[in-house]
Amino acid sequence: MKGIATPTVIEVDNGSIVSPQGFSATGLYSGVKRKRLDLGAIYCEVPASVAAVYTCNRIQAAPLKVTKESIATEGKIQALVVNSGNANACTGKKGLEDAYQMRMESANHFQVPEHYVAVTSTGVIGEYLAMDKIVSGIKKLETTSTLEGAEAFNQAILTTDTMNKKVCYQTKVDGKTVSVGGVAKGSGMINPNMATMLSFVTTDANIESEVLQQALSTITNQTFNRITVDGDTSTNDMVVVMASGLAENDSLSPTHPDWEPFYIALQQTCESLAKQIARDGEGATKLIEVQVNGALTHDEAGKVAKKIVGSDLVKSAVYGTDANWGRIICAIGYSGCEIDPETIDIGIGPVQTLVNSQPVTFSEEEAKAYMENNETIVIKVDLHVADGSGKAWGCDLSYDYVRINAGYRT
Amino acid sequence: MKGIATPTVIEVDNGSIVSPQGFSATGLYSGVKRKRLDLGAIYCEVPASVAAVYTCNRIQAAPLKVTKESIATEGKIQALVVNSGNANACTGKKGLEDAYQMRMESANHFQVPEHYVAVTSTGVIGEYLAMDKIVSGIKKLETTSTLEGAEAFNQAILTTDTMNKKVCYQTKVDGKTVSVGGVAKGSGMINPNMATMLSFVTTDANIESEVLQQALSTITNQTFNRITVDGDTSTNDMVVVMASGLAENDSLSPTHPDWEPFYIALQQTCESLAKQIARDGEGATKLIEVQVNGALTHDEAGKVAKKIVGSDLVKSAVYGTDANWGRIICAIGYSGCEIDPETIDIGIGPVQTLVNSQPVTFSEEEAKAYMENNETIVIKVDLHVADGSGKAWGCDLSYDYVRINAGYRT
Repeated sequence: MKGIATPTVIEVDNGSIVSPQGFSATGLYSGVKRKRLDLGAIYCEVPASVAAVYTCNRIQAAPLKVTKESIATEGKIQALVVNSGNANACTGKKGLEDAYQMRMESANHFQVPEHYVAVTSTGVIGEYLAMDKIVSGIKKLETTSTLEGAEAFNQAILTTDTMNKKVCYQTKVDGKTVSVGGVAKGSGMINPNMATMLSFVTTDANIESEVLQQALSTITNQTFNRITVDGDTSTNDMVVVMASGLAENDSLSPTHPDWEPFYIALQQTCESLAKQIARDGEGATKLIEVQVNGALTHDEAGKVAKKIVGSDLVKSAVYGTDANWGRIICAIGYSGCEIDPETIDIGIGPVQTLVNSQPVTFSEEEAKAYMENNETIVIKVDLHVADGSGKAWGCDLSYDYVRINAGYRT
Repeated sequence: MKGIATPTVIEVDNGSIVSPQGFSATGLYSGVKRKRLDLGAIYCEVPASVAAVYTCNRIQAAPLKVTKESIATEGKIQALVVNSGNANACTGKKGLEDAYQMRMESANHFQVPEHYVAVTSTGVIGEYLAMDKIVSGIKKLETTSTLEGAEAFNQAILTTDTMNKKVCYQTKVDGKTVSVGGVAKGSGMINPNMATMLSFVTTDANIESEVLQQALSTITNQTFNRITVDGDTSTNDMVVVMASGLAENDSLSPTHPDWEPFYIALQQTCESLAKQIARDGEGATKLIEVQVNGALTHDEAGKVAKKIVGSDLVKSAVYGTDANWGRIICAIGYSGCEIDPETIDIGIGPVQTLVNSQPVTFSEEEAKAYMENNETIVIKVDLHVADGSGKAWGCDLSYDYVRINAGYRT
């Protein structure tokens, strides 16, 4: 099912997080950031089944604790409120109180129980939230089901991002149209000053939160967990999926005859957002996609792919449009996965550079032209160990990565 | 014993790999590189006890296989021959034959059995060695016990390095002077075009190869394995220690009364070389030293320290002289080690920035001044979990790292 959109799953032009029935969104300027929008909300007119995955960093920001508590209560939420400009991370007791207050004010504003509210923050670590600004901002949140509402939300969650990340897929379940819309932010896998990866996905599918959670966890491993910009993992990363059920299909589960198109729509949404994040990596000029076949397992294939795409040397070589396969085989060698040093194939785009671990003569000009003329650089590896396959995505390492991260805070 | 030179272990000005009795060295230009010296040898007038550690990359270059075979035969070698400019890695059968021929020609030239010869290569991956140049070069190797001989050897093993790395310590064992001299190369932890970490250490101590091997393995974990420039691990990394025994002390082992000064001399030699490599990381402007205390074990302390010093975001912040402790706590959080999110202290030089995981008010100016005015930036972390402590070393991430690695091969 990897990346193959069956005819029943289509991408919707100008689709967004408000395309699925029941959802509205907004974004505004509260004053936490200097100028740009910094507070947003997604609202669902009914309590939505919810699933979420969080950063595996042992240091987790206060809003993650509060959101986990909300979701644990009933597996449903109705409102999700996000601020950018301040991560409310490493802020101790006061930070936790602030996150609770943010949830309470949002619950009052949207007139829903507190445990129907998720809160999340992204931005500077170690500084307290300007709660006066946040509170008066929350009171002004007016969500709409228009594209403008979705765009404003998307703007409000961005930090060092240079582009919006959004996508929407549709499919049929029980003959009813089901939409899945998503937005994301993130440009360093983390930049604890002003980054973090966040993604919010909405759908009108009818699905229980446990089933949704299982699908999200599996899909996250193959999409959001397969991208890397700099290998750092934020204290605030979070992916939340809300399902309103307003498509009125029979409740989805893996035994439902239309489970596959729904699963693919959700998977394509997450993969698209993940690739958009990788493409917008800090300072990136190109998206790198690594496809590994012939690994011991699918998991190992993903691990090898991620090691290659995470190598600063490979990333620098792509920036320099240098078909440097030595750096690729080197990353394969230290991936910690099962390999046979004598049976490795490596191709860069259309150019085969290594077959059975033996260098082959290839045209450096052709390889260079491929790397210069394409926005997405595809690296293909076959390990010839077994049948595991998997992909990972990243970006090249440019002067601008250093500029952005050396100069940001000061 | 970490880093504390007792009065009985002293650093020798202008000491080198030929300071220990019995050793001579040389370096010359064979034509593998465009201009600079590219072939070197260390010779010992007697068969020397030998210990070695190799890259943990599953892809290992041909000369590593040949050298392992030499050492396995008797645990002794007399000659070590190195070329730079070509790594003889991923070169298949022909590469292995070339490495054997390099060993055979060296054995003939130095008139020793083949298994008394170690060979090693560093440079471009995936190209065959120009054996005509290597063979005629080997025939011209004339080692001397002068500082010039040692310097020529050091020049011959360099690639993208911008400075020589060498050190020599002396101590007393059984009342006799024992010297330990070392050289190293490496500036990306790997740059498969023209890098790799190599280190060669000589001593006139009398010690069996098994005992030496055990000491080297332990010490390597705390020194060479605690540095990172870019997290990549070469196919060619190798550390070799040769012990001539000509100091004529009683054979050393941990029960020998003078074991500790010898061990410290060897450890200081390796630590000094490791730090010199980190300081000369590609594009580096500063050495970063991270000291972690209060970890569950010494190993975990080292692991946390290495995660911090390996974070591109921390490295960029040091380059930008930004006391960005948020990036440090973030790396601690994803280190995979036992931590308590509520009990972490972080200091940058003299400036305490976090106590018990609570941000403390500090002077940004003082922190910035510290980072601007020092060549070595010390980051101190206390986890307050248990008593494990350990250090790691790295360098900042500058525009030049990208320039060197994007533009090198082409």
